[in-house]
Amino acid sequence: MAKLCVQLDDIHAAAGRIAKHAHRTPVLRCASIDRILGAELYFKCENFQKVGAFKFRGACNAVACLSKEELKRGVATHSSGNHAAALELAAKLSGSSAHIVMPSNASAVKKAAVEGYGAKITYCEPTLEARESTLAQILEDEGRTLIHPYNDSRIIAGQGTAALELLEEVEDLDVLMAPVGGGGLLSGTSIAVSEALPSAKVIGAEPLNADDACRSMEAGEIQPSHDPQTIADGLLTSLGDLTFSIIRERCSGIVTASEESIIEAMRLVWERMKIIIEPSAAVPVAALLEKRGDIPGNRVGVIISGGNVDLDRLPWVE
Amino acid sequence: MAKLCVQLDDIHAAAGRIAKHAHRTPVLRCASIDRILGAELYFKCENFQKVGAFKFRGACNAVACLSKEELKRGVATHSSGNHAAALELAAKLSGSSAHIVMPSNASAVKKAAVEGYGAKITYCEPTLEARESTLAQILEDEGRTLIHPYNDSRIIAGQGTAALELLEEVEDLDVLMAPVGGGGLLSGTSIAVSEALPSAKVIGAEPLNADDACRSMEAGEIQPSHDPQTIADGLLTSLGDLTFSIIRERCSGIVTASEESIIEAMRLVWERMKIIIEPSAAVPVAALLEKRGDIPGNRVGVIISGGNVDLDRLPWVE
Repeated sequence: MAKLCVQLDDIHAAAGRIAKHAHRTPVLRCASIDRILGAELYFKCENFQKVGAFKFRGACNAVACLSKEELKRGVATHSSGNHAAALELAAKLSGSSAHIVMPSNASAVKKAAVEGYGAKITYCEPTLEARESTLAQILEDEGRTLIHPYNDSRIIAGQGTAALELLEEVEDLDVLMAPVGGGGLLSGTSIAVSEALPSAKVIGAEPLNADDACRSMEAGEIQPSHDPQTIADGLLTSLGDLTFSIIRERCSGIVTASEESIIEAMRLVWERMKIIIEPSAAVPVAALLEKRGDIPGNRVGVIISGGNVDLDRLPWVE
Repeated sequence: MAKLCVQLDDIHAAAGRIAKHAHRTPVLRCASIDRILGAELYFKCENFQKVGAFKFRGACNAVACLSKEELKRGVATHSSGNHAAALELAAKLSGSSAHIVMPSNASAVKKAAVEGYGAKITYCEPTLEARESTLAQILEDEGRTLIHPYNDSRIIAGQGTAALELLEEVEDLDVLMAPVGGGGLLSGTSIAVSEALPSAKVIGAEPLNADDACRSMEAGEIQPSHDPQTIADGLLTSLGDLTFSIIRERCSGIVTASEESIIEAMRLVWERMKIIIEPSAAVPVAALLEKRGDIPGNRVGVIISGGNVDLDRLPWVE
């Protein structure tokens, strides 16, 4: 296998670094969803992680890698959601601080979450250009360290710890599935699984309406997202060069799910498992409901990426 | 202590009988709810139990106590909700059958749940008289065994197994809380705790709008519910003679919660813990939000009774 920027050892090291702050989340099962899909599913519940999403793992690892001097100057990033809250909490727990650039159209619930953790926030126009130029100015003015949401080897190693825990807890999985947006979680998962359990496949899942990862794999180069319209608001971004090269090398395939299936899968998990998952987290289950992924009879690990939902606006309520 | 119809040994025996069918549900914690309440809370998650409620424990124990001949003739009960689904599944798993009398105004989601488990259902007028006369006719015609939802020592012993598991998993609890409707769960909890951990208090919680248990304790005799109007639809019934005598003897007190607090508590648990709980399950947390129960600094076990909610009709969505 080609040498990548993140190795299994890096994921093990990340697991050690984040152990005192991150939750070891439970793995839940659901007999009725197993019956519906004709497979054994093991749900790694990162909706129960701190800040309600796997993002805390990567952010916590990245902050733990900083020098005292870097911690003192603080960190910065642009994010519309879970990465912002995760980075702010990780910085706070290490006696550092975070400055977050958020698009002005971020959802109220995500704004409130980031504000609730006490981050310094600068709102900008909701374009990638505005985000990047605003962030560049902050990095220059304040001397902070950039912690990119996904295209960063410390972040990728941190996200891989969820799969590592799942492999430790459940033996002989045939397949692991994770949603893919920028690809940090899927990259970390792909490295952990391809090195620790090479017999298993890793499958990424994304909304059909934001199928840039699928198109990127087919084209052999990163394809951009064009203003994707999907309820899975954590999966809007395109791959970065690091995540693209890892996924291309180590992931068995990307499957897609329609908006209708995503809502159906989200509701199915709420009803049958009594856990709250966000639309992005429902995408792998949605793809399985569409009979994608070829898993019947298999033991399938699914990383439930997060549970941050605006409870005032549920997709199935008019 | 006075000799009651259910002893700790009966709860241990129930635990053995139900072990192969019931889930040993997880105990979850939540740092932010601990901060809000100024105490350490341990949530015993019976919303993850089979049929989504603790009721499966009692039903499963009651069915396991039947003779072969009784199993062959089947069981019957009247219930508007979780007990019906629980009894039907318990009967099915033991090769028996259940006939359920439901009020015609039961919620669509509860009707669908009971129908989904394949029970034979007879709908009746939504009055206690209609329920009882319809059930009496079925018992006479079909020779089935009545399994009362709460005023039955087998049911009480089964419900007590949730507290037993919580005591096994979390040491040195100061207080255990459970909601009280008919009193099966609170009775079983009171016996388990008063005998296995006599230093701990047991506190029941009920809606202020259905405060018959509180009034019954004050009056020293069972006080009826008068058409109570509460969102906590699992807590509408009054105590029975068995549950009243156990709660009077072994429970430290009953606290109440307003409808507003119940909805606030339910939403708080959904948002912070990412788990789905039904309004009845939120009542102990609601009472704590109202600063009832005198728990600051304590280690408090809370039995989350169930998670069956109509996702199309959330109380905070217009």
